[in-house]
Amino acid sequence: MQIKKIAAIVAGALILSSSAMAEALPAAGAAAAATAPATAGKQFVITKVTPNYWRVKISNPPYNIYGPESMPQLNSVVTELEQDPNVRVVVFYSETPGFFLTHYDFVPPLEQTTSMPNGKTGLPPLADMLVRLTRMNVVSIASIRGRATGVGSELALASDMRFASREKAVLSQFEIGAGFTPGGGPMARLPRMIGRGRAMEILMSGNDIDGELAERYGYVNRALPDAQLDGFVDTLARRIASFDKQTIGDIKNQVNIASLPPDKDLGAEWQSFITSVQRPAAQKNIKKLMELGLGKKAEIEIHLPKYTGQVNQP
Amino acid sequence: MQIKKIAAIVAGALILSSSAMAEALPAAGAAAAATAPATAGKQFVITKVTPNYWRVKISNPPYNIYGPESMPQLNSVVTELEQDPNVRVVVFYSETPGFFLTHYDFVPPLEQTTSMPNGKTGLPPLADMLVRLTRMNVVSIASIRGRATGVGSELALASDMRFASREKAVLSQFEIGAGFTPGGGPMARLPRMIGRGRAMEILMSGNDIDGELAERYGYVNRALPDAQLDGFVDTLARRIASFDKQTIGDIKNQVNIASLPPDKDLGAEWQSFITSVQRPAAQKNIKKLMELGLGKKAEIEIHLPKYTGQVNQP
Amino acid sequence: MQIKKIAAIVAGALILSSSAMAEALPAAGAAAAATAPATAGKQFVITKVTPNYWRVKISNPPYNIYGPESMPQLNSVVTELEQDPNVRVVVFYSETPGFFLTHYDFVPPLEQTTSMPNGKTGLPPLADMLVRLTRMNVVSIASIRGRATGVGSELALASDMRFASREKAVLSQFEIGAGFTPGGGPMARLPRMIGRGRAMEILMSGNDIDGELAERYGYVNRALPDAQLDGFVDTLARRIASFDKQTIGDIKNQVNIASLPPDKDLGAEWQSFITSVQRPAAQKNIKKLMELGLGKKAEIEIHLPKYTGQVNQP
Repeated sequence: MQIKKIAAIVAGALILSSSAMAEALPAAGAAAAATAPATAGKQFVITKVTPNYWRVKISNPPYNIYGPESMPQLNSVVTELEQDPNVRVVVFYSETPGFFLTHYDFVPPLEQTTSMPNGKTGLPPLADMLVRLTRMNVVSIASIRGRATGVGSELALASDMRFASREKAVLSQFEIGAGFTPGGGPMARLPRMIGRGRAMEILMSGNDIDGELAERYGYVNRALPDAQLDGFVDTLARRIASFDKQTIGDIKNQVNIASLPPDKDLGAEWQSFITSVQRPAAQKNIKKLMELGLGKKAEIEIHLPKYTGQVNQP
Repeated sequence: MQIKKIAAIVAGALILSSSAMAEALPAAGAAAAATAPATAGKQFVITKVTPNYWRVKISNPPYNIYGPESMPQLNSVVTELEQDPNVRVVVFYSETPGFFLTHYDFVPPLEQTTSMPNGKTGLPPLADMLVRLTRMNVVSIASIRGRATGVGSELALASDMRFASREKAVLSQFEIGAGFTPGGGPMARLPRMIGRGRAMEILMSGNDIDGELAERYGYVNRALPDAQLDGFVDTLARRIASFDKQTIGDIKNQVNIASLPPDKDLGAEWQSFITSVQRPAAQKNIKKLMELGLGKKAEIEIHLPKYTGQVNQP
Repeated sequence: MQIKKIAAIVAGALILSSSAMAEALPAAGAAAAATAPATAGKQFVITKVTPNYWRVKISNPPYNIYGPESMPQLNSVVTELEQDPNVRVVVFYSETPGFFLTHYDFVPPLEQTTSMPNGKTGLPPLADMLVRLTRMNVVSIASIRGRATGVGSELALASDMRFASREKAVLSQFEIGAGFTPGGGPMARLPRMIGRGRAMEILMSGNDIDGELAERYGYVNRALPDAQLDGFVDTLARRIASFDKQTIGDIKNQVNIASLPPDKDLGAEWQSFITSVQRPAAQKNIKKLMELGLGKKAEIEIHLPKYTGQVNQP
């Protein structure tokens, strides 16, 4: 029953290569196209409410899945935020019903991901962008309505603050159930933010955490009644947007010294994801999840912990 | 009123040596035998619910006191968990009414404890076993019903997660009231998990923390209604037991980097216990507590903070 | 709109020098005198309830502002606590209606502050005293009724525990709204105690945090009904006062290893305050706040976040 370690990871190895996929899921190509209609479109849409206050809408309906093609788009947003001399605060939000931002896309060959060059920090792309978000002299706020799992939870955790809809937010790191480890920082960030015990529960159970429990655990700053979330976040963002940018940067730098994980741990976490996702346990589970409809059926996306539970049954 | 530091700790010195004990408490020998009927029996009983899911019953009635003779027994459990290729999750629990696991046994000569060899990690036995529990690629869950004070709290804190009965769990580190420091890790683990202020309150007051407050402070993940505790923990454990063991180990390793105290701090903590427990303040308080019935009377064991308060009055 | 960094800070530069003040606020001198009637009086009054249990009343009515003249007074208290062989616990409290301890006094020339010699730890005076408070073998408890902002919040955060009046306590770090950074440790202490996200919210919003939210965030240990606060703190303090001083010191030392920020970060934080408070953004905001009545009018002191919000409007 023990899973043997794959000693050497073949560079550029595919997880469920296109041909294997085609075999297992005859309709996978079409389905993939169907679920990613906005691939060429903008998945991260910036609105400058004022020069000092930006909003970024996460928009890749129907499930706001994040894939290799999302990388350069998020990178553009991060770069614009870094370089703009005026912006003080940015709010990440979604209008896609039921989804804030969800898991990594397993349809494209893994090579598309592993072949991307490292970013400015020397880290792989996702780790690089999230680290830069934590370091820039702009305050980032995740306003969470709908599911934030996998990359969605990781973007939220890399934001400076998180506010959640009490009724409509769900946070999780579902990865363990699919047989691989997270890659975008939660193993480094969650224990530092909410303590070892609650971080272990979230990461080892892969269970959904609703808004109320997320607040109780400190996974979000606060869970607000859904009807109040937008107003609360907007008022807070406008307030911060009125403050001195240099002072914001000074405070953030000093909080960072006290709270950020070392970059190398975030790099190791991404590598852990890439390595584990290629092992048999993950490949088997991902294949089963895709057969059930991962990325295609709302039922699977909405009840991910139920189905990750099922695929692990003998 | 100032307590003079005992400059040199005589190696192998006894705390309340057998003869001193006999003088102070003529019936101590008999009482000790009476309170530890299971000394030769199994204090930690493993049940393999499935090959992947083990439960360890803590059983040393009537008070589940932990003493030198418990060390090799707990060590066997830890070693089995480390070496088994299948186990993914272990639940520690108790069926002893009112007690999860309580304080160190002060009846045997301290020499029995200090003469034990260090464990695999190079740390003294208790620190060694608890560190190994935090490092193994098995998820550990403390399911707390009854008192978890001293070693009981320390075993819970070294477990990966803690769930408590809202009505029947009590956690504490009572040691300060008895005039010595804890030894099994809470000075290193509590501040990292729940913050400096709440850790200080628990460690400096020696007060009982009930299930509800323990959840509010983050001392446990959650406090559940007593009737739901077993079902909740069992469901969670079965879910984790179905997951990939290597992935569990990978996640745990990375959470550990972000959250475990350095081994040397845990070694120092044990030494701090051994040193402080031999000082006059501790010897006076332990003697008074034993005269009141520590280890023998339910009244004392159940209301330990009341009696540690009393023995410190002039 | 970007604020240019002042490359070289002129040693001894005044923030709003006396003459500039006189120009901007003709009545400033008189007002300053009026708001600081107790300058020559005792702002920190020690009562020895017992030799083991001290209380320190913070008393600089009407607003308990903390200024350069407060430094040697607080230093005396800290030194007495360090040197006394008997004291085990100290409670900081206030009887000034509405105020626990509030922000730094901006009326005296900054030179009065910057010309003070560093303390025993080698750190500037405020950082030095707060570090010594965290290190001494005396348990410190902040009993918070009224506003604890700026230095008030910082003294509370440097205390070992914090208990707040549920109805009457308000905590905040208002500095960002006035255009400068905090200086007394919260950028180092808050993230370690309550996690990065909630620390960021407090420090970046400058908003008031009431007792209930302060407890939910872990900014205080607990918020108690106002009528119960004094009794609760007194009972806890008397209990701790009965315990062994050496054991208190041993436990505190080990908790400190797990929880205190490095001294150098606290020194850098003070320097960040001194640097930022001299920049144009801060000078403009402080001038506006003083024109509105900072340090003179209850309305401004009580609703500080409202007015820091106003002065940042174009």
